[in-house]
Amino acid sequence: MTSIAADPVDSVFVRACRGEPVEHTPVWFMRQAGRSLPEYRELRAEAGLSMLEACRRPDLVTEITLQPVRRHGVDAAVFYSDIVVPVAAAGVGVEIVAGTGPVVADPIRSTADLARIGRAEPADLSFVEEAVRMLIPQLEGTPLIGFAGAPFTLASYLIEGGPSKSHAKTKALMHSDPQLWHGLAERLAQITSTFLRVQIDAGASAVQLFDSWAGALSEADYRRFVLPHSAAVLQGIGPVVPRIHFGVGTAHLLTAMAEAGADVVGVDWRTPLDQAASLVADVVDLPVEGAPRLGARSRTVQGNLDPALLGAPWEVVDHEVRRVLAEGEAAPGHVFNLGHGVPPDADPVMLTRIVELVHKISVR
Amino acid sequence: MTSIAADPVDSVFVRACRGEPVEHTPVWFMRQAGRSLPEYRELRAEAGLSMLEACRRPDLVTEITLQPVRRHGVDAAVFYSDIVVPVAAAGVGVEIVAGTGPVVADPIRSTADLARIGRAEPADLSFVEEAVRMLIPQLEGTPLIGFAGAPFTLASYLIEGGPSKSHAKTKALMHSDPQLWHGLAERLAQITSTFLRVQIDAGASAVQLFDSWAGALSEADYRRFVLPHSAAVLQGIGPVVPRIHFGVGTAHLLTAMAEAGADVVGVDWRTPLDQAASLVADVVDLPVEGAPRLGARSRTVQGNLDPALLGAPWEVVDHEVRRVLAEGEAAPGHVFNLGHGVPPDADPVMLTRIVELVHKISVR
Repeated sequence: MTSIAADPVDSVFVRACRGEPVEHTPVWFMRQAGRSLPEYRELRAEAGLSMLEACRRPDLVTEITLQPVRRHGVDAAVFYSDIVVPVAAAGVGVEIVAGTGPVVADPIRSTADLARIGRAEPADLSFVEEAVRMLIPQLEGTPLIGFAGAPFTLASYLIEGGPSKSHAKTKALMHSDPQLWHGLAERLAQITSTFLRVQIDAGASAVQLFDSWAGALSEADYRRFVLPHSAAVLQGIGPVVPRIHFGVGTAHLLTAMAEAGADVVGVDWRTPLDQAASLVADVVDLPVEGAPRLGARSRTVQGNLDPALLGAPWEVVDHEVRRVLAEGEAAPGHVFNLGHGVPPDADPVMLTRIVELVHKISVR
Repeated sequence: MTSIAADPVDSVFVRACRGEPVEHTPVWFMRQAGRSLPEYRELRAEAGLSMLEACRRPDLVTEITLQPVRRHGVDAAVFYSDIVVPVAAAGVGVEIVAGTGPVVADPIRSTADLARIGRAEPADLSFVEEAVRMLIPQLEGTPLIGFAGAPFTLASYLIEGGPSKSHAKTKALMHSDPQLWHGLAERLAQITSTFLRVQIDAGASAVQLFDSWAGALSEADYRRFVLPHSAAVLQGIGPVVPRIHFGVGTAHLLTAMAEAGADVVGVDWRTPLDQAASLVADVVDLPVEGAPRLGARSRTVQGNLDPALLGAPWEVVDHEVRRVLAEGEAAPGHVFNLGHGVPPDADPVMLTRIVELVHKISVR
């Protein structure tokens, strides 16, 4: 006898993303799957595989994605992967170095270099499709969030050759050779779109586009060099599933990030959610060729507990969670999250308590 | 026969800081003295001294402070030092590790630790006084900007034990033990005030308070935990010299940073100067006990070329300098600068060309 799992489309998380009334505020954590969990560290050590190899193993991806759902009782799973997975699948030589991040042996800095980046076709990402298909039944109705890096953040890794604080080479290239920049960003938008499309087609109920470093840009540069490409990704997906758009230090970019076509804008701890909600309210999508025009519409927000406070005593966290929830009431459909990813040294017990608290005090 | 040097009080830089009409836009660069200059690297290698030792040698400080004035023809010198110099003078064990930054062997995390931080008296900083007195005549009328770190940024180094991206321990301490936090910040405000006071008394014509990491805080936390202490420093100095207040990633904090008592608010490249000018216009100083009340007043802005673009071709830099100057016209008294310090690998020739361009095209 099999029980019929609830449809993720009817879940609290997906309905909140659509701005519909929900029974309680949904909660999940960026980077909930991974480094902060002892069961993850054990599994990785046992498997003895590199990060990219692990991301290509559907059985491991499934188990790692499920771990925080089991442990914390979060309202959504997020597909375990890395933003460079589809870039590697498109032929770029990239490794993930522990303690550093993605490292690109031959950075992309000329039109000739651009030729080394192929297209990503769904067939190149069959391991992603397989992992999502394995996951869905085991999630028993918990929605799965598809995961991808945005063109700017990906481009920065490819141009700098690794993580960068200043993004100096990336910014210099944008301004000095806009044609090469837009060529690169278009190619990355295609790769990221395919990565998300494969996850949606296999059963993901929402997607989040991570533009982690977008906050390093002025609004003028963001609008000129980045927004059209992120808009092509988000609007290319269309409104079939809710689309979350996230960056750090983006107090000055929230409206533009909504215009990209986001249904939910991720907000770090620097901007109170009530302010953020008004910055993304009634924003019109940037027109994108071939994408459906949705007109002005309200969007909701996701966030925004400061992850730096996860090491503080519980009373502090309790107080801050209540403040975030109160400010989030300004946005119909607020999704509770941290303002950035779970730090590697976070105590997972704290995360479980946060989920319990959010569920308890947000009941409507 | 000696010529009588112009009084720095009448300089373009000081008058601009006061919002008075000037013949051209003044320009200087944060970190103009130091790592980017080959003559600096030579001098440091020859001297064979640590960073902190060099900061205690008036002859070296004088020469290093003068180097960029000679080379670039900037409108102001900035006192060569490090933000931890007065903290070390107050008895805290701190070293500056090349490639890392300030490292504190025994971080401050309890009330008992607080007892290890003494007061800073002018006598502890006699080497600073001596350096400024040596500098003034050699500057021949070019104004000298006094230099100090703000209580929050200093506290973060002391609590974390070194540079930190997340400031997790600092934020946890603020929220969990506000009394200890305020005790620490008050002590650092006293130390920083003495450091600035010594520089002013010896002849500095302006000061800049560097709160480099303040942008990591929400406005609510900034106002609760930081603003009163930075206000005590800036308003304790009083309006005797122009006071510049600077941080990075502070798009959400510019008004609060003006309220601290700044005459000039430093702005990074993320906020256009015309927007910044309106955020600091007609702001009232936060009341500080014992400080004169100046009432609502307009302030000017400093910045904001993205230092990441210094590696771009000259045409890009030329275009961006013109844009910054055009946006700066919204603020009477705009002081041209980068949006953050000169990167170590910057080409000094580029900086000289920027000074020439700013002087040429801003003539009124």
